[in-house]
Amino acid sequence: MTLITRETAGVFAIAPTPFDEDGAVDFDSLSRLVDFYESVGVAGLTLLGQLGEAPKLAHQESTRIVRHVLERTSLPIVVGVSASGYAAMAALTTEVMDAGAAGVMIAPPNTLRTDDQIVQYYEGAVHMIGDAVPFVIQDYPLSFSVVMTPSVIARIAVAVPNCVMLKHEDWPGLEKISTLRRLEGDGLLPRLSILCGNGGLFLDFEIERGADGAMTGYCFPELLVDIVEATAANRDSAHDLFDAHLPLLRYEQQPVIGLAVRKYIMKRRGLLASDAQRSPRPVLTDTTRAEIDYLLARLSRHDPRVELVK
Amino acid sequence: MTLITRETAGVFAIAPTPFDEDGAVDFDSLSRLVDFYESVGVAGLTLLGQLGEAPKLAHQESTRIVRHVLERTSLPIVVGVSASGYAAMAALTTEVMDAGAAGVMIAPPNTLRTDDQIVQYYEGAVHMIGDAVPFVIQDYPLSFSVVMTPSVIARIAVAVPNCVMLKHEDWPGLEKISTLRRLEGDGLLPRLSILCGNGGLFLDFEIERGADGAMTGYCFPELLVDIVEATAANRDSAHDLFDAHLPLLRYEQQPVIGLAVRKYIMKRRGLLASDAQRSPRPVLTDTTRAEIDYLLARLSRHDPRVELVK
Amino acid sequence: MTLITRETAGVFAIAPTPFDEDGAVDFDSLSRLVDFYESVGVAGLTLLGQLGEAPKLAHQESTRIVRHVLERTSLPIVVGVSASGYAAMAALTTEVMDAGAAGVMIAPPNTLRTDDQIVQYYEGAVHMIGDAVPFVIQDYPLSFSVVMTPSVIARIAVAVPNCVMLKHEDWPGLEKISTLRRLEGDGLLPRLSILCGNGGLFLDFEIERGADGAMTGYCFPELLVDIVEATAANRDSAHDLFDAHLPLLRYEQQPVIGLAVRKYIMKRRGLLASDAQRSPRPVLTDTTRAEIDYLLARLSRHDPRVELVK
Amino acid sequence: MTLITRETAGVFAIAPTPFDEDGAVDFDSLSRLVDFYESVGVAGLTLLGQLGEAPKLAHQESTRIVRHVLERTSLPIVVGVSASGYAAMAALTTEVMDAGAAGVMIAPPNTLRTDDQIVQYYEGAVHMIGDAVPFVIQDYPLSFSVVMTPSVIARIAVAVPNCVMLKHEDWPGLEKISTLRRLEGDGLLPRLSILCGNGGLFLDFEIERGADGAMTGYCFPELLVDIVEATAANRDSAHDLFDAHLPLLRYEQQPVIGLAVRKYIMKRRGLLASDAQRSPRPVLTDTTRAEIDYLLARLSRHDPRVELVK
Repeated sequence: MTLITRETAGVFAIAPTPFDEDGAVDFDSLSRLVDFYESVGVAGLTLLGQLGEAPKLAHQESTRIVRHVLERTSLPIVVGVSASGYAAMAALTTEVMDAGAAGVMIAPPNTLRTDDQIVQYYEGAVHMIGDAVPFVIQDYPLSFSVVMTPSVIARIAVAVPNCVMLKHEDWPGLEKISTLRRLEGDGLLPRLSILCGNGGLFLDFEIERGADGAMTGYCFPELLVDIVEATAANRDSAHDLFDAHLPLLRYEQQPVIGLAVRKYIMKRRGLLASDAQRSPRPVLTDTTRAEIDYLLARLSRHDPRVELVK
Repeated sequence: MTLITRETAGVFAIAPTPFDEDGAVDFDSLSRLVDFYESVGVAGLTLLGQLGEAPKLAHQESTRIVRHVLERTSLPIVVGVSASGYAAMAALTTEVMDAGAAGVMIAPPNTLRTDDQIVQYYEGAVHMIGDAVPFVIQDYPLSFSVVMTPSVIARIAVAVPNCVMLKHEDWPGLEKISTLRRLEGDGLLPRLSILCGNGGLFLDFEIERGADGAMTGYCFPELLVDIVEATAANRDSAHDLFDAHLPLLRYEQQPVIGLAVRKYIMKRRGLLASDAQRSPRPVLTDTTRAEIDYLLARLSRHDPRVELVK
Repeated sequence: MTLITRETAGVFAIAPTPFDEDGAVDFDSLSRLVDFYESVGVAGLTLLGQLGEAPKLAHQESTRIVRHVLERTSLPIVVGVSASGYAAMAALTTEVMDAGAAGVMIAPPNTLRTDDQIVQYYEGAVHMIGDAVPFVIQDYPLSFSVVMTPSVIARIAVAVPNCVMLKHEDWPGLEKISTLRRLEGDGLLPRLSILCGNGGLFLDFEIERGADGAMTGYCFPELLVDIVEATAANRDSAHDLFDAHLPLLRYEQQPVIGLAVRKYIMKRRGLLASDAQRSPRPVLTDTTRAEIDYLLARLSRHDPRVELVK
Repeated sequence: MTLITRETAGVFAIAPTPFDEDGAVDFDSLSRLVDFYESVGVAGLTLLGQLGEAPKLAHQESTRIVRHVLERTSLPIVVGVSASGYAAMAALTTEVMDAGAAGVMIAPPNTLRTDDQIVQYYEGAVHMIGDAVPFVIQDYPLSFSVVMTPSVIARIAVAVPNCVMLKHEDWPGLEKISTLRRLEGDGLLPRLSILCGNGGLFLDFEIERGADGAMTGYCFPELLVDIVEATAANRDSAHDLFDAHLPLLRYEQQPVIGLAVRKYIMKRRGLLASDAQRSPRPVLTDTTRAEIDYLLARLSRHDPRVELVK
C-alpha cells in the first residue's frame, strides 16, 4: 500500500463525483474518469473534497465511491475526511485506510479563530485517527474562514509528525510558499509536500516558488501536469501554455458555479455522461454555456488537446 | 405514532448525551435521564441537538441513541437531523421516523445569507425528506450566523406545510414572538408551535408573549415546566420562581462551557454517572465548580427541589 | 492631569450620548448625567464607546462632547478612539489627550484573525498614537469577531508598555480573568487593570476572580459600585443585591435593543430629557416598555434607590 | 456641475492615493495621475474608495484630496462616503457635493444580514444625505460580507430614486448583470448604470452581458477603456487584448497585496513618485517584484503601451 509522504510531488486531481440525471452516483463515468486521469499522468487522486460534492453524499455512498476508485486504479488516493466531529472523522478514516487509501485530508472547522485553537484541533484529530495515518492540512481561508499563518502550520507539523502534506489554497499565497520553504531551511518546520489548489489560478508562479505540485480539479488536468513538469525546462513556454488556459481557468474558478462549469466541460470532453449535480446546485444558463463554448473554441487554437464532443 | 403538530405545547427537554470516562455512550445514564424527564412532566424530548454533542457521534451511535430512547419512553421525540448535505439529512430522517420519532429539527447551514437562499434551503430539504414528516425550524443566529426575519419564516411556513414548529432562539427575541403571532392573526402565517431555547434566559416573558413552551436543556427542567404552566395563574409568583433560578440559569447559558456546567449539575443531581464530554471539550476548573456549587447552595434556599448528591 | 494606570480600579461608567427628539446632542442632559455619575461614586467615565453611539457622531460632535464632559468633572475620562484607520485614530487621540482625557480605548478591527495580526495591529496603533498615551484594549469578541487569547494579550502588553488596562468582555470570561492574573503572577504579563463589561452580567463572580472593577453602562451604576466595593466584606449580601438586579440587567443586556432599554430607564430616572437615539435605531414597543416597567417595579421592592419619574 | 446619471457609461478609474515615503499625501503625484487618467480617456474618477486607502486618511486629508482633484480636472468625480454612521456620511457628502463632486458611493456596513436590513440601511442613508445627491451602491460581498440579491437592489432603486448606479463586484457576477437588465426590461427596476469592479477580472464578458463600463483601478486603465469601447466592434480582438493583460490583471487582483502591486507598477510607469502605502500595509518582497517585472515584460510583447521607467 502506497502512502503519501513528505516528498510526494506532481498533480493530485480532485475528481468530481459523477451523478446521473436522477441524482444517483454514476459509477461508469467514475471509471472512465479514473482511466482518463491515469492516462494524462497525474500522480494521484483526491476524493470526497468539497468539489467532489462530499457533503451531499450519504455515508455509504462515500465509502462505496472510494472502494470503486481503489479497485480501478493503483494511483495513490487521498480522501477528504473532514467532519463536524472527531468520531465520524475517525470512523471514515479507518474505513478508507483499510480499503487502501494513501492518506486523508482534514480541513479546519470554521469555528476556529486563534492560533492555539487551530493547533489543538489538529492534535485532537490525530489523537482520534492515530499517528500512523499520513494526513494533509487543507489551508483554504476563503472557504473555511480559518487563517493559518506559516508559524501555525509549523506548530502543527512539529506537534503531529503524520502531518506530511499541505494543500495550499490561501490567497494571496505565493509568499506563504516561500516562507514555509524558508522555515524548512531554518529547521523550524519538517519538510512538507506542498500541493496547490485554487483551481490552479497561480500555479505558474507557485511551482517557481517551491511547491511540489497541484491538488485541484481544473477540467484540463493535462495543463496542470504540463506546468508542474515543464517549468524548470523553459520558463517562457510554460507561461505561454499557462496563459493560454488562463481565461478558461479563471472562468472555472468562480465560486458557486465553478463545479457546474467544470462538469459541463468534462461532459463535453466525453468524460461524464451527465453534468448533473446534487441539490442544492446552480444551473448554468444558455448564455453561460455559450461563454464557456467560446472560451473553449479560443483555447483550442492554442492547445490541440482541446477536442470536444459536439 | 405521535407526531408533533402546530398545537404542540409544553417543554421539550434537550437531552445531553451521557458518556462514560472513556468516551463511550452510557446507556444506563440515558435511561435514567429519560425516566427523570418523564417524571417531571416534560411534554417531549429533543435528541441529537448541538448540546446533545450530535456532531461528535458516529452515524451508528446517533441512531442507536434514538432507538434506545424510543424504546424507553412514549414521549414524543424530536430528532436533530441537520447535516452538511441533503442526502445525509434524508437518510437520518427516514431512519428515525421509521423508528418512531415525532418529527425532525433542521438548522440552516451557516453559508446562507439572503432571504431567498434561506427559503430555498428549506424547500430543498423538504423535497428530500418528503412532505409527510413534520419538522422544526431552528432559528439560532448567534450560533449559525443565519438571520431569519419573521417574513422569511412566514415564507417557509407557507411554502412547505410540514413546517409546524419554530425553535426560537433569536436574541433579542421577544418582539419576534409578538410579530409572528400578529402575522398569524393577519392570516399571513399558518399557526406554528413556538418553543423557546437560549437556555430559558427569557422564558419568563416569552410565555407571556405567546410562546407555546420551551425547547432547551436547563439542568432543572422542573423550572421550565413550572414557568410554562404557571404564568397565567399568577404572574408574580412565576417571576419569583424564575428569578430564583436566573443566577444559575445565566451561568449555565454561557457559550463553550455551558454544556459542561449542565453535565456537572446533572451528575450532582444523580442523573449522570459521569459529566464527561467527548473531545474537543472544555474542562471545568476547581474554581468554576466551586462557583456552581455556591449558586446551587443559594438556589436551594428558594427551591426545595434542589437536592444534590454529595 | 490624571492618567489611567495599571492600578486603576472601580467603576468606569460608559455614558450614553443624550440626544433630543430632533437628533441634536442634548448637552443639558449630558451635564446632568455627569453630575449623577459623580454623585454615585464612579471612579471614572468612558465616552464615545459603541453604546455612546460614537459611530453616529460627526467628528466635531465627538470632540465637543469630550470637551463638555472634561469641563464638567474632574473624574478621569477614557475616550474610545477606534477608527477604521490609524490616521483618524491618532488625530482624535491627540485632540482628546490635549483636552485632558485620562487615556484612550482601542478595539480591534473585525478583519483581524491570527494572533500575529492582532499583536501587529496594536503595535502599529501605538506607533501612531505614541507611547505616552495610556490605552485600554477592548476585548469584545461577540461584537468584533476578534478572539484574543490570554497569551496574545500578554504579547501586546509586553510589546507596548502603554497598554495599561483591559476592558474585558469576552464570554465566557471568568477563567480568562484567572488566567491573566496567573500570568501576571508568573511574570509573563505586566500587571493590567482589568475592568469588566458585558453590562455587568457576570460582575458578581468577575470581582471574585480578580477583576479591578467594571466598565459598562448598566442603568443603575449604583449597583456596579456596590458590587465592586462590597464583595470582600460579605459575599452573600453582595450576591443578594446583585441577584435582585439580575432580571433587569439581563433584559438591558440584550443586543440591538439594549441601549434603547437603558435610555428609557435613564429617562424614567430623570437623567435624560429624551430617550431618543440617532438612526438607525430600534424602537421600543408598548409591550417592551411595559415589561421594563414591570421589572423596575419588582426591583424597587429590593432596592430602595429605584425611584422613578412617573 | 455634472452629476452621474442612470445613463453614465465608460470607465471610472479608482485612483490610488499617492503618499511620499514619510506617509504624507503627495499632491504632485496626484496631479500627474489625474492628468494621466484624462489622457487615456476615462469617463470619470472615483476617490476615497477602499483602494484609495480612504480609511487611513484623516478627515481633513480626505476633503483636501477631493478638492485638489476637482480643481485639476473637469471629469466627473464619484466620492466614497461610506462611514460607520450616517452623521459622518452626511457631513462628508455635503462637503464634497458642495465642492463639485458628481455623486457619492455608499457601501453597506458588514453587520447587515437580511434583505430588509439592507433596504432600510439605504433608505436611512438617503434620509440623511438627501434625495438630490445621486449615489452608487457598492455591491462587493467578498469584502463586506453583505449579499444583495437582484431583488434587493431593485427594492432599493425603487424606494430611493437617487440611486442611479451600481458598482457591481459580486463574484460570480455575470448572471447578476443579465438578471438586473431583465428586471429593467420587465419594468421591475428603474434603469441603473452598472459599472464593474473586481479589478476587471471578468470585464470581457461583463460588457457583453450589458454592463455600462468599469469602475476599478487596474494599473493599465487604457485596457479597461479599450474593452469597454471595443467589444461591439470585434469580439475576438477585444478578447485577444483582454487575454494579453489577464496574467497581470489576475496578479494585481490578489487581496491584501493588490494595491501594493498596483502602486509598484504605477511607479514604474512614472505616475507615482513613490509606491508607499500608509500602515498597516504589506511589503512586496524582491521575488514578488521580480514576478511583476516578468509579467510586465511578457505583456509588453502584446501591448506596445507597456513602456516603463527603469
